[in-house]
Amino acid sequence: MTENSRYERGLAKLAEYTAANASESHYRIADRLSAIAPDIGRYIIEFAYGDIYARPGLDNQQRALVTLATLATQGTEPQIELHVNTALSSGLSPDQIVEVFMQLIPYTGFPRVLNALGLAQRVFDERVQS
Amino acid sequence: MTENSRYERGLAKLAEYTAANASESHYRIADRLSAIAPDIGRYIIEFAYGDIYARPGLDNQQRALVTLATLATQGTEPQIELHVNTALSSGLSPDQIVEVFMQLIPYTGFPRVLNALGLAQRVFDERVQS
Amino acid sequence: MTENSRYERGLAKLAEYTAANASESHYRIADRLSAIAPDIGRYIIEFAYGDIYARPGLDNQQRALVTLATLATQGTEPQIELHVNTALSSGLSPDQIVEVFMQLIPYTGFPRVLNALGLAQRVFDERVQS
Amino acid sequence: MTENSRYERGLAKLAEYTAANASESHYRIADRLSAIAPDIGRYIIEFAYGDIYARPGLDNQQRALVTLATLATQGTEPQIELHVNTALSSGLSPDQIVEVFMQLIPYTGFPRVLNALGLAQRVFDERVQS
Amino acid sequence: MTENSRYERGLAKLAEYTAANASESHYRIADRLSAIAPDIGRYIIEFAYGDIYARPGLDNQQRALVTLATLATQGTEPQIELHVNTALSSGLSPDQIVEVFMQLIPYTGFPRVLNALGLAQRVFDERVQS
Amino acid sequence: MTENSRYERGLAKLAEYTAANASESHYRIADRLSAIAPDIGRYIIEFAYGDIYARPGLDNQQRALVTLATLATQGTEPQIELHVNTALSSGLSPDQIVEVFMQLIPYTGFPRVLNALGLAQRVFDERVQS
Repeated sequence: MTENSRYERGLAKLAEYTAANASESHYRIADRLSAIAPDIGRYIIEFAYGDIYARPGLDNQQRALVTLATLATQGTEPQIELHVNTALSSGLSPDQIVEVFMQLIPYTGFPRVLNALGLAQRVFDERVQS
Repeated sequence: MTENSRYERGLAKLAEYTAANASESHYRIADRLSAIAPDIGRYIIEFAYGDIYARPGLDNQQRALVTLATLATQGTEPQIELHVNTALSSGLSPDQIVEVFMQLIPYTGFPRVLNALGLAQRVFDERVQS
Repeated sequence: MTENSRYERGLAKLAEYTAANASESHYRIADRLSAIAPDIGRYIIEFAYGDIYARPGLDNQQRALVTLATLATQGTEPQIELHVNTALSSGLSPDQIVEVFMQLIPYTGFPRVLNALGLAQRVFDERVQS
Repeated sequence: MTENSRYERGLAKLAEYTAANASESHYRIADRLSAIAPDIGRYIIEFAYGDIYARPGLDNQQRALVTLATLATQGTEPQIELHVNTALSSGLSPDQIVEVFMQLIPYTGFPRVLNALGLAQRVFDERVQS
Repeated sequence: MTENSRYERGLAKLAEYTAANASESHYRIADRLSAIAPDIGRYIIEFAYGDIYARPGLDNQQRALVTLATLATQGTEPQIELHVNTALSSGLSPDQIVEVFMQLIPYTGFPRVLNALGLAQRVFDERVQS
Repeated sequence: MTENSRYERGLAKLAEYTAANASESHYRIADRLSAIAPDIGRYIIEFAYGDIYARPGLDNQQRALVTLATLATQGTEPQIELHVNTALSSGLSPDQIVEVFMQLIPYTGFPRVLNALGLAQRVFDERVQS
């Protein structure tokens, strides 16, 4: 398989996680960094989406659950916000997303969960308004 | 609801995640600590299983996905091993468990994933032998 | 013991850590999340304060020392700010709170400590003004 | 103040945290690394003990509480084991040390706490036997 | 060696990492905390710069590479911003600094790297404008 | 560029970091996991070595410095051991590797550094003996 087809496969997979009206997106993150790190957007599409997300074995919603769990555990806030959006686009409901964070309480404690829930609430509010 | 019923609800929920032949279990962890910290086993059953795992919104397999993702992200090895077992008991296949860890690569990098896969392999081998 | 008494015991314990004039509080955090995660405020009161903080063996100030140390180590900023407040309400002096963070330098390095001290300074300033 | 006096002050402070019969000690850790990193033992004594532990504002037991909390949060196992020993030598009881780890549950979740308690139990057993 | 000479050696070493026109600096961080933690600025100069940075074995640019790598891994944002500045002053080019963060992708995943690159871009823009 | 050439470029780059007599290697890690996760070894070679390590901007020794710094910060022990080996093969001396870990003390504290130095010592001893 050529790199070109990895990129195209990644773009197609990413589109499955992207709402038409998403105010924040992977495209914008890559755009902001295109001046100093032009390759990172390509790696995200080729490797993260083209190689990993496109694998069989778990469906889009299951991959979104796993992604939300690792990001909330790490506390990387811009990515939590972005992937609450991708999780919604994968078809998970707001209640299921909240429940992912609730499930983390015994494993990360309350602080990481409270911060992730605050970011989720912001995304839910933005989606309703737009 | 009384504490007693939280404990019973937690025990019932925990049983759904426990194989009859599991060589390692929550019961044994709690047993080992019963001399110095007699309450922690009770908190795990009442709070983690009775309050959190017993909530609606996600099913057992979805909760197992979230749990594996946070533990592999943290690298807490005894718990990764234990919850590969609980994930199998919830009905997830070895392939799906491996795929949870593969999905983490873009978010945690390779080292955490390699270490979690090594522990998963050990559990898969033990289950086959027993 | 009924859940109701755990909640009441937790509320009573939380009141011991809460200044009358605290500009930020657990109540407000729970309030902000009450729309999407109505149970998390209850778990904090029942489990964190009702079960854990209410245990014998360490007094309120000792529990505040432990809490500040773990939060500064994790770098979870809103909770550092909140628990500098609860530590003051437990009777620890600003100098003792600063000293908790100084004690962390050999174990976490300077960055986490500098960030925690910056948040502590903001809380000290707010308390003086209010 | 000369470096020599920092070293001596550090050694004196470290002695306050060291049991006569401790099977594991800072001295042995520094010894093992003396071939490849001869200065790190000196930095621990001069900076960690001579500069930081020797500060006023918190007593030895309070510093031990803070140290146990940060180490259990990070999960650095050899140091948890070492500082359960220094905490005992500072006069904290086994019950108080266990209680430090219990207090962490709402902030780190159960896995880090279970692992720290397992290490504490090993130290308590060794001290009883020696 | 007296403490005074450690402080002077640290100041001299720090000056090698400080641009004349740096809008953000260690001096300012220490200044902001001088009211509540007057000693931490001194420890940074004496221990971090006077003891550690002044050691032989690695040159200034190599130490800057190591420092950027650990800070991006931890995600401590104010320090990433500060040390992108010190790295530039050590003579590393913007392209080399970007490349440090790219090298981290296989070990930390994308989120930490994207956040560090965003901070680097802000510093590069400020330096151009000033 | 085809995937095949990414794989070949990755293998060539990996060979630059691999001693003929290395007792532990990437090949062996991938081998051990080939039964349950046959693709992860390929991703490490294609993405980590073929895409990232093969980039211009930093030389092999600089990439080894960055890699050691992030791994010691995370405390992922098998990878620290492996990459002390790759760092030696890149031409860094044992003294320089020790110095990377010393440079981390102000940013991670002593525990992570002591544990990394212990692993480095083991690798140095093995290389001398083989």
